[in-house]
Amino acid sequence: MSLVIVGSVAFDTIRTPWGSRERIVGGSATYCSLAASYFTRPRIVGVVGRDFPRKTLALLKSRGVDLEGLKIKAGKTFHWEGKYEEDTNRRMTVRTELNVFADFRPEVPARYRNSRIVYLANLNPEHHDFVLGQFHKPGLVAMDTIRLWIDTKRETLLRELGRVDIFFANDEEARLITGEINLISAGKALVGLGPSLVLLKKGEHGALVFGRDFVFGVLAHPCEHVIDPTGAGDSFAGGFLGYLDGSPGPAPGEVRRAAVYGSVLASFAIEDFGIGRFLTLDRELVEARFRQFRKLTAF
Amino acid sequence: MSLVIVGSVAFDTIRTPWGSRERIVGGSATYCSLAASYFTRPRIVGVVGRDFPRKTLALLKSRGVDLEGLKIKAGKTFHWEGKYEEDTNRRMTVRTELNVFADFRPEVPARYRNSRIVYLANLNPEHHDFVLGQFHKPGLVAMDTIRLWIDTKRETLLRELGRVDIFFANDEEARLITGEINLISAGKALVGLGPSLVLLKKGEHGALVFGRDFVFGVLAHPCEHVIDPTGAGDSFAGGFLGYLDGSPGPAPGEVRRAAVYGSVLASFAIEDFGIGRFLTLDRELVEARFRQFRKLTAF
Repeated sequence: MSLVIVGSVAFDTIRTPWGSRERIVGGSATYCSLAASYFTRPRIVGVVGRDFPRKTLALLKSRGVDLEGLKIKAGKTFHWEGKYEEDTNRRMTVRTELNVFADFRPEVPARYRNSRIVYLANLNPEHHDFVLGQFHKPGLVAMDTIRLWIDTKRETLLRELGRVDIFFANDEEARLITGEINLISAGKALVGLGPSLVLLKKGEHGALVFGRDFVFGVLAHPCEHVIDPTGAGDSFAGGFLGYLDGSPGPAPGEVRRAAVYGSVLASFAIEDFGIGRFLTLDRELVEARFRQFRKLTAF
Repeated sequence: MSLVIVGSVAFDTIRTPWGSRERIVGGSATYCSLAASYFTRPRIVGVVGRDFPRKTLALLKSRGVDLEGLKIKAGKTFHWEGKYEEDTNRRMTVRTELNVFADFRPEVPARYRNSRIVYLANLNPEHHDFVLGQFHKPGLVAMDTIRLWIDTKRETLLRELGRVDIFFANDEEARLITGEINLISAGKALVGLGPSLVLLKKGEHGALVFGRDFVFGVLAHPCEHVIDPTGAGDSFAGGFLGYLDGSPGPAPGEVRRAAVYGSVLASFAIEDFGIGRFLTLDRELVEARFRQFRKLTAF
């Protein structure tokens, strides 16, 4: 059991029609590791500035997150500012201050190098080589991306899709990469680019899982009041990979359950600003919602 | 077993980026009755002009559709012209020629009056009274609507929602009626307006079923090549109501299976222009796809 998450630990400023929060804790590795922590002991590779709250580091540790790979550097922590419309599927980036993240060269601690699953959370795809070169044959390599890399590093991104096992994308990203409007075509085209599993996230409409010879669909938890959608995708990845890390292998049934856990963890993430919801969440509540998902779709 | 469908039998002219068809057979009652015909012997109340092909009437009869309530009047058949973008979720009405449908006063044959289920397919809500007054206490009354009535007959539509058991709406209609952007809120608000069951159709994302104390979700069949989305909603209603008409009653498990059959029939409707796909469809193919839906969502 070992899942390494390479990504951002950050501050987010969030503006929504029903409230705002200044410089609360966020970041892909933060959400992903918290979500995964209900199934395994995830390991983070990332960087923060000296301004990052020790309290949050203590919280992550208390949830079993291994922080040996998280560097604390002189300077300020990565800060993202985003704004949501009333239709929370629509997000606008207002500001991105990379700060100490700007020249982040992810160094993998020796102790992490035999890890079974490596997750590259929206890294610059040009850095994949450097990161993956530090691991001894991980069993599964997963990646996510962001629109920035699709627009500016398209060739490198396509090359990297050829070497990973699992790819997470939202509907917009899947369409931009493949040029397909139909999401079934887009998902199949992504599998054709390399990954044996593609997780296509559709926000309130759930997610589709594409494999070499199957399609599986998972709904979103019916949520009436989305407070803050930030981190939903990373929490999905954390639930998915965390569950897989605790299971014997990516057999079809395990992949299906992992996708449902992904949707379960994403559904908790959006119920409060930032990582707020994870402060009171326990495995029992996760399992209870997993059972609700069965009732939601069983016929 | 008796389902009466009150709606249009029409000609459609369809334009899509991958092909067009002039004056092919369509209409809400046509799609709905064909979809329902795999489960029951649906009865149509409607009107066509003398230009309507006898061949299609013979086809409907051969599928077990009862046409006693379909009037053939001097004049031309209702003709709708629509255009789809490459994103087939977006439809534009180019032209509507009501013709004989303009002063259609739906008269219910005596033999239909004890029917168990009555479906009012996008009728002018001001005509509901006249139609429903001709039935002897139907067990279930279902209705659909269109944007035109939401925009022009809002008060009457809201009143009618208070007297029906089942309401079919797509996402746009649900939002327009309730003012809620979040679809879970919109679905619950619609139940609050009267119907004990609301079927909220989301195109490629499937459908949500709202009851007084439950939410159920059904996916869409993963379809890569949507040829013609016209009639998908009416086929959904036909599969749903047809299955319910053949079952003992709207118990929760039956409603869930009915919704899946609705999604199954809608998925066939979009695979060809007009009612083309129904020409070769049989119950065995319907059941095979129903089983595929289980594999699509089981975990």
